[in-house]
Amino acid sequence: MDEEEFHLYNQEREISIGYMVFDGFAPLDVFGPLQFISGISADFNMSLSIISKKAGPISTYVPLHNIDDGMPMKETISASVIATHSVNDAPSLNLLIVPVSDIRYGGIGNRARFMGNDTWIENFVASRFNATDFVASVCTGAMSLAKAGVLDGKRATTNKLAWSQVIPFGNNVTWVPNARWTHDDKIWTSSGVAAGMDMTYALLRWLYGDERVNVTMNAVEYAPHVDPHWDPFSVVHNVPGADHAHSLKDLVGPVGYDN
Amino acid sequence: MDEEEFHLYNQEREISIGYMVFDGFAPLDVFGPLQFISGISADFNMSLSIISKKAGPISTYVPLHNIDDGMPMKETISASVIATHSVNDAPSLNLLIVPVSDIRYGGIGNRARFMGNDTWIENFVASRFNATDFVASVCTGAMSLAKAGVLDGKRATTNKLAWSQVIPFGNNVTWVPNARWTHDDKIWTSSGVAAGMDMTYALLRWLYGDERVNVTMNAVEYAPHVDPHWDPFSVVHNVPGADHAHSLKDLVGPVGYDN
Repeated sequence: MDEEEFHLYNQEREISIGYMVFDGFAPLDVFGPLQFISGISADFNMSLSIISKKAGPISTYVPLHNIDDGMPMKETISASVIATHSVNDAPSLNLLIVPVSDIRYGGIGNRARFMGNDTWIENFVASRFNATDFVASVCTGAMSLAKAGVLDGKRATTNKLAWSQVIPFGNNVTWVPNARWTHDDKIWTSSGVAAGMDMTYALLRWLYGDERVNVTMNAVEYAPHVDPHWDPFSVVHNVPGADHAHSLKDLVGPVGYDN
Repeated sequence: MDEEEFHLYNQEREISIGYMVFDGFAPLDVFGPLQFISGISADFNMSLSIISKKAGPISTYVPLHNIDDGMPMKETISASVIATHSVNDAPSLNLLIVPVSDIRYGGIGNRARFMGNDTWIENFVASRFNATDFVASVCTGAMSLAKAGVLDGKRATTNKLAWSQVIPFGNNVTWVPNARWTHDDKIWTSSGVAAGMDMTYALLRWLYGDERVNVTMNAVEYAPHVDPHWDPFSVVHNVPGADHAHSLKDLVGPVGYDN
């Protein structure tokens, strides 16, 4: 079907969304995208499952830890969201979204403190991948997708501070250093935390077209980055292949206005 | 004390933060600011209370409703956060933050469906105001501050889509039409939803200085708007006094970099 038919198809069907959460998740990874998605859900049919290993409260809490250079960091303040489903009882999903799989200041190294060798996130992604229409990651959620094998042969990106810790995973993944987000076949990936909002705007436009999505963006006063190649944080965090030839800044404004 | 002394004073004390939530709250109003605040809490001493009328799960759910022009809207998908404290057992607070007091598509008119004549938010703000160091609102949370009387004689702003519905409240409030956020004495207010993140960046720099705050911003890859007068949404939403003479767009990038 063509683009317009695809928009109508999505506007008329129900899209079942699953958002994975786990202890130490980054709140903006989840609730930035969900702000836009829940806004659009007032226009089009969606359902949402918040999925964790077990249903119930899941906290953003990060304990005392060292960052990757050994600097000691305090435990953080935190909030808890309620997981509505466990991986065992989650419904059929059209869109599965996987947020950061590490800790804001702790880097990937601290992930083991939370997850140990537990691969329930990767197992769930791998088991559900074929039955989903699309899978999206925010920040280092891409590491979970890579470990699950669903990035093999695909283009992907991730948080640029955690770049070197994420890109060893997966087989034949084309990790794109200059990307606010990527879209390759069923796979959407974003760069760090806040980039998930820009990916979500692009994803929602791709699904539903501009009209209602733009109304939502301007109601919540978010000026998105719309160039998927804008990525100053690859320069800030010294990612190999970072594009130093362009300005680090981006001209953003309300969507639908030229000047 | 001077600016540097003020930063040291805040870096060395514990800051008790209270975030109010209630049914139908906008998730990005809460979790955008909290992403930055919780990041900084790994550096400096903070505590966080999520406060509602009663402790327990509070949902972002918005039921079937009409927007202000009468257009019918669907119920939304939703997530629930756990309120850790009720208004009756919340601890002493240095910083109290009040998010949107209306509904994303429903406008202020729908607020009554949720709140009726219940003024527990305003009562709490009024009762705690003198004992706090600062009070901040995100989006139409400014309406709650105005109703509580704490904006009287102050400069403030709010969501520009909801502008005409908010500014009747309060006495002798200077409502600033071209403002991403305002800071007047103890009062910080932001424009719509996403603007809360930019206000929070400004507030955190003001409290703690640039260094650790900028590390956090670049780790989560958020490029903040740093001009409090940048406000294209006042033009988009036809706010009286909107500045039509300037570009609607803003040049943003990673903090701490000039080019």
